[in-house]
Amino acid sequence: MELLEERIRKDGIVKAGNVLKVDSFLNHQIDIGLMNEIGKEFKRIFSDVEVTKILTVEASGIAIAAIVAQYFNVPVVFAKKSQSINIDGSVYCTKIESFTHKRVYDVIVSKKYLSADDKVLIVDDFLANGCAADGLIDIIRESGATLQGVGIIIEKGFQDGGKRLRDRGIRVESLAIVDSMDDTTGQIVFRH
Amino acid sequence: MELLEERIRKDGIVKAGNVLKVDSFLNHQIDIGLMNEIGKEFKRIFSDVEVTKILTVEASGIAIAAIVAQYFNVPVVFAKKSQSINIDGSVYCTKIESFTHKRVYDVIVSKKYLSADDKVLIVDDFLANGCAADGLIDIIRESGATLQGVGIIIEKGFQDGGKRLRDRGIRVESLAIVDSMDDTTGQIVFRH
Repeated sequence: MELLEERIRKDGIVKAGNVLKVDSFLNHQIDIGLMNEIGKEFKRIFSDVEVTKILTVEASGIAIAAIVAQYFNVPVVFAKKSQSINIDGSVYCTKIESFTHKRVYDVIVSKKYLSADDKVLIVDDFLANGCAADGLIDIIRESGATLQGVGIIIEKGFQDGGKRLRDRGIRVESLAIVDSMDDTTGQIVFRH
Repeated sequence: MELLEERIRKDGIVKAGNVLKVDSFLNHQIDIGLMNEIGKEFKRIFSDVEVTKILTVEASGIAIAAIVAQYFNVPVVFAKKSQSINIDGSVYCTKIESFTHKRVYDVIVSKKYLSADDKVLIVDDFLANGCAADGLIDIIRESGATLQGVGIIIEKGFQDGGKRLRDRGIRVESLAIVDSMDDTTGQIVFRH
């Protein structure tokens, strides 16, 4: 997605340790106009499949999921990190390791909001090692729902998450795939 | 807001300990159509003030902030709980006590995304004891930005957060104010 790649080139900051900071428009401050263009693009790409729920994981996936859901006219369900007293006991639960925070989270979805009838599109801001997607896919499998695909804004193509998911036959559509980046020059190379 | 009160009566669940669960449409599964009506209503209510940023705190405020921001045509900034390795050192920081989770969080906003020129509208899903709003107001004050108001979806009128904020001269607009609720009968009384 040209508009997105341009924005990453302009405002993304490459840091040591394979960190790409897009805090200025995606996951701290959010450019809602860009999110709407992203929502339209996901709808175009996944127009051939039925979707009844958009699934993501808190926190930074929520904004994109909310905007994307407008184009599919379906509810969002976001998986919650760690047990909250406001969640009933009857939940699907999995563990997700965070690349960013270097820790493992328990992640839950109430059984009330995902069922065998659902056709689910996962959306998230980043795909790197794929742990978040793996966790959400576990939850979908547990619920008996159908996974229709995974929509990612930025995939780190030099990490193995995307390849692993595609090798399992899962449809992964990433709007920008970074093949390499250099924290000394700031250069970012996209896959086309 | 009639549509919201109807939805709370229909789908809200009153639990012991003054917990109002609205997980089915607001903070686990999200009804995006309802969020859009809420966004329009906040725009109508705050149409008399200039707004350059919508500020909220992760996680459940993010969806509503993203949808509301479309009607104001401005970016969202969401305050992050706890230090992340993806955040620079130069941040505004405060502490927020969570009523739901019974713990204190460090909450941060990068100095890059809030400045003295900004006119800020805070939005959040709930206002109870007001700790989250207090924390966000601390951050706005530290930044030198102007607070234009606080937009809340559901205020628990029997807790003192709303009164404390209004007594300080802060404009608080809540789309539904619950004056009392009874976990034995499920009855919810709204302020009008």
